[in-house]
Amino acid sequence: MFLSHIFAKTTKESSAESGSANADLLERGGFIHKTMAGVYSYLPLGTRVLRKIEDILREEMDTIGSEVFLPSLAPVENWQKTGRFETVNVLFQATPANAFSAKHNDAQYVLGSTHEEIITPLVQRYCNSYQDFPTAAYQIQTKFRNEPRPKSGILRGREFRMKDLYSFHVSEEDMLDYFFHKAIPAYTAFFQRVGLGEKTDIVLASGGDFSKEYSREFQTRCETGEDLIFHVPGSDVFYNREIAPSKARVWDNSSEEEKPREDVVGKGIIGVEELAEFMKIEVERTSKTLLLETDAGQFVAAVVRGGYDVNEEKLCKVLSCRSVRLASADVVKKVTGAEVGYAGPIGLPDDVRVVWDESTAGRKNFECGANKTHEHSININFGRDIEEPEQFYDIKTAKEGDCDPESGKTYETFYGSEVGNVFTLYTKFSDSFGFTFTDKDGKQKPVYMGCYGIGTTRVMGVLAEVCHDEHGLLWPENVAPARVHIVPIAKKEEDAPYKEALDLYTQLEKKGVECLFDDRLGDTVGSRLADADLIGIPLRIVVSEKTLKGKGVEVKERKTGEVTLLSAKECMQKIFS
Amino acid sequence: MFLSHIFAKTTKESSAESGSANADLLERGGFIHKTMAGVYSYLPLGTRVLRKIEDILREEMDTIGSEVFLPSLAPVENWQKTGRFETVNVLFQATPANAFSAKHNDAQYVLGSTHEEIITPLVQRYCNSYQDFPTAAYQIQTKFRNEPRPKSGILRGREFRMKDLYSFHVSEEDMLDYFFHKAIPAYTAFFQRVGLGEKTDIVLASGGDFSKEYSREFQTRCETGEDLIFHVPGSDVFYNREIAPSKARVWDNSSEEEKPREDVVGKGIIGVEELAEFMKIEVERTSKTLLLETDAGQFVAAVVRGGYDVNEEKLCKVLSCRSVRLASADVVKKVTGAEVGYAGPIGLPDDVRVVWDESTAGRKNFECGANKTHEHSININFGRDIEEPEQFYDIKTAKEGDCDPESGKTYETFYGSEVGNVFTLYTKFSDSFGFTFTDKDGKQKPVYMGCYGIGTTRVMGVLAEVCHDEHGLLWPENVAPARVHIVPIAKKEEDAPYKEALDLYTQLEKKGVECLFDDRLGDTVGSRLADADLIGIPLRIVVSEKTLKGKGVEVKERKTGEVTLLSAKECMQKIFS
Repeated sequence: MFLSHIFAKTTKESSAESGSANADLLERGGFIHKTMAGVYSYLPLGTRVLRKIEDILREEMDTIGSEVFLPSLAPVENWQKTGRFETVNVLFQATPANAFSAKHNDAQYVLGSTHEEIITPLVQRYCNSYQDFPTAAYQIQTKFRNEPRPKSGILRGREFRMKDLYSFHVSEEDMLDYFFHKAIPAYTAFFQRVGLGEKTDIVLASGGDFSKEYSREFQTRCETGEDLIFHVPGSDVFYNREIAPSKARVWDNSSEEEKPREDVVGKGIIGVEELAEFMKIEVERTSKTLLLETDAGQFVAAVVRGGYDVNEEKLCKVLSCRSVRLASADVVKKVTGAEVGYAGPIGLPDDVRVVWDESTAGRKNFECGANKTHEHSININFGRDIEEPEQFYDIKTAKEGDCDPESGKTYETFYGSEVGNVFTLYTKFSDSFGFTFTDKDGKQKPVYMGCYGIGTTRVMGVLAEVCHDEHGLLWPENVAPARVHIVPIAKKEEDAPYKEALDLYTQLEKKGVECLFDDRLGDTVGSRLADADLIGIPLRIVVSEKTLKGKGVEVKERKTGEVTLLSAKECMQKIFS
Repeated sequence: MFLSHIFAKTTKESSAESGSANADLLERGGFIHKTMAGVYSYLPLGTRVLRKIEDILREEMDTIGSEVFLPSLAPVENWQKTGRFETVNVLFQATPANAFSAKHNDAQYVLGSTHEEIITPLVQRYCNSYQDFPTAAYQIQTKFRNEPRPKSGILRGREFRMKDLYSFHVSEEDMLDYFFHKAIPAYTAFFQRVGLGEKTDIVLASGGDFSKEYSREFQTRCETGEDLIFHVPGSDVFYNREIAPSKARVWDNSSEEEKPREDVVGKGIIGVEELAEFMKIEVERTSKTLLLETDAGQFVAAVVRGGYDVNEEKLCKVLSCRSVRLASADVVKKVTGAEVGYAGPIGLPDDVRVVWDESTAGRKNFECGANKTHEHSININFGRDIEEPEQFYDIKTAKEGDCDPESGKTYETFYGSEVGNVFTLYTKFSDSFGFTFTDKDGKQKPVYMGCYGIGTTRVMGVLAEVCHDEHGLLWPENVAPARVHIVPIAKKEEDAPYKEALDLYTQLEKKGVECLFDDRLGDTVGSRLADADLIGIPLRIVVSEKTLKGKGVEVKERKTGEVTLLSAKECMQKIFS
């Protein structure tokens, strides 16, 4: 590929969000261009990278499923059947854009953000006997999501590319077998091949309210990642913060003497930090009490130590319910007698269940809301002011410094960027479509499903995030837009360095080695070499009068910066070694 | 690929439109499934065919442009700049699907039906000097069009796949050079490779109101095609009906004596067929007069012989205007004095220009509207009742039996299905975006563009239309989902025919020959062989007890039906020959 043939050039400035390495480098390198917020055009070099990622992914997915291509336009009825038409908060629809179009066909379609609503009835059409299972199908396709705040370049957009695979099974065991022994190994192989293997961990994450099994996220370690990962040191156990079991850092004041309880007025003081400062007490001595309501209508007061947040998913598990939501201001007032912000565990009505987090155990003289507007109770003690709970639970979101309750080890934490995920869906979607099969015993049984996603444009973005230095990108060989970047230093096409370089290019391309050839002789040598660094092809070959006087060509490894002078023959050997 | 691994099976019935061979065969063969009107899911076999078509296309397009990938969501402003937001009558928009989504981002985007509105400002960003041209970029992508009546399976849908290429030039000459010497040859090579070459002609078609050059359509001869093609026998000149120059079949009554003019009441009789019958005259003796208004506000009466339609594009050329439209009923009444249907060329106001088609020349005693409601004038004669026109024009749409005016030869006509088209856009889109370049002389000049489309799903549909027999599909080798379809006739996997067949399969796949392996031993032999015919892989290999007792395997060429008994070694030789 001749650089002069590519309309999209490297640029000094990028139109991308500041602070996003992938957007900045990919824009400046001429890989992508921001069309509008959350929507990018892939330029020739970027399209090559994306295609390589998708081709590798296709090869790995072909080992565990058949490729299909499903439509982006979906019938609204299908989404109504699963109850997601009104609830998925990033859903787009397609409708006629103008009066002429509406006159033809005034229709409304869902614009696909995911494809359970298409694939489930499609597989149902063909598979109705136990003999038809297990089966799996995947596609690589554009998805549309109305992200509230698209950011981080191509990491989170309103339009992006994704591979989604769906599997179908006769039993939970078969579903789990596929999940662990087909999907996860194929994912691992893919991330290895695109060059993210060493930086990518398999992380336990929420499975959703319909799943008994954790989902698994493939998280690439990345400073700008959106997820905080909790790793149990010395193990291969990683948790996404949202579900990490947590034991709070010990805060022990059990040697204190019990002080007399007081109710203190702190007008408008709600946050624990502010409260601790106002009261001149440690944050750890404060308590945060939230009033929530379960899907079954039960009221719950959840109490965590100051500095922590209540984790609704953990709370649901404790309460054996599907969902909880914060009580409204009116309800809070009615139940606690106080405005929002002053709830506490003492003196609540009998029908409110109080759930204490383990971080609140073992404290003396602690603070909590007084259930009176603007008032806080201090020097509260179990046994004296309130009954000691029979059990403490883990209902808080983990934070740095917490321990893994099982091993007792303090978590190692780091930021990760999610590049893939695998979910067990159980019978959630098959139930919506009445998708059952006839088993050996002649009985109708529900189909178990799994779904497995990899955002291919996101993988490209994460590669840019983790594979670059101060001069530009450092593409891993398998996904680089070319393997070799050839720069002839010459004034004219008739000059020896240009002719030698072109000869090398022709030979390499003939042998199937993709090359970029910088034929922009009118530009300065400095800017052309800087472009080579910015674009980030693994090997750069310079041919100049000087190199020709020496051994022949100068070869630089982009990643290590190592420069060697080689003859043309040695250069070929190096490339094919 | 094992047939048992593919969830999508062959079926007896299809959900497709009746009378559409591609939809019927592709549905029954398990290639596609209709999700809803105009929207299809591509099943594993269909996805393979589509991918092969697109891979071949990519190879050909890479020789004349760089691949990009543009977003489907486009800013409304871009479409307003070109004036197409309100006028393209198949345009879709994307908006939030529910209240939650709207709350996040209540945006409106165009859902791309074509990409001039994205590529033009994108190339403009990078190319501003004469040195940056010519340049060309293409993509293969999903398009969305709100077709009023989607039909013919995947030939005309609301969502389909398309390759669109755009080229950019410093001059008309350079644009035309690319059009004729790069785009058209690359297209020709592509259609040759996918197996449509012999049936596909390059047809002259309308270039649109902004183009001086005809567009070219690649039309595959096909009984169910939508376009009527006019071929000048013995030449390589083909016209789409919409622009075919036409000389009407001679209808000569010049030997008749002039009869007295009469105005006859024919209440409610408007159509020429009905009128001819009512009047007991030949259709050719009747005239059709339409009152139209040009974009410049000029009134025109266009007169064609009964049996023809006025061709607005031809009329525009005669009038040197950009567009004409039928006058409204009110205007007709005002101008002619009669209701719609009774307009005639005699006695119109002076400011109405009368344009006569050549088909109306040389007639005596002809009929025309009387400009009085329900009345028709008969036995009209030039010279006596109305002045003989100074010039007759070709303003009618050609019909079967017409002659090519240049050669005088009667056209050969056939139906075609459009599989590709190439357009010169001149400066239409660059003007909308103010896209100019600095020429050698330092002056700003407008950029010339071309656009070039191939619908890849449509190519797949046309292949099914033209490559099938009564038993099923007949895929050309380059696009077949596999090269070989292996059918072991056995009861169990332990039986010799199964083991031999599997061995052959393994050997072939190892050598890169894609095979389908029919491991559905529970099905009847008859249904499995019928499936092989329906699916239409070029070679079928049967391994049975009987073939093993003979030379080894039975090889059938799907297209010719030729069956040969070969040893395994001879079979391999045949495949690699």
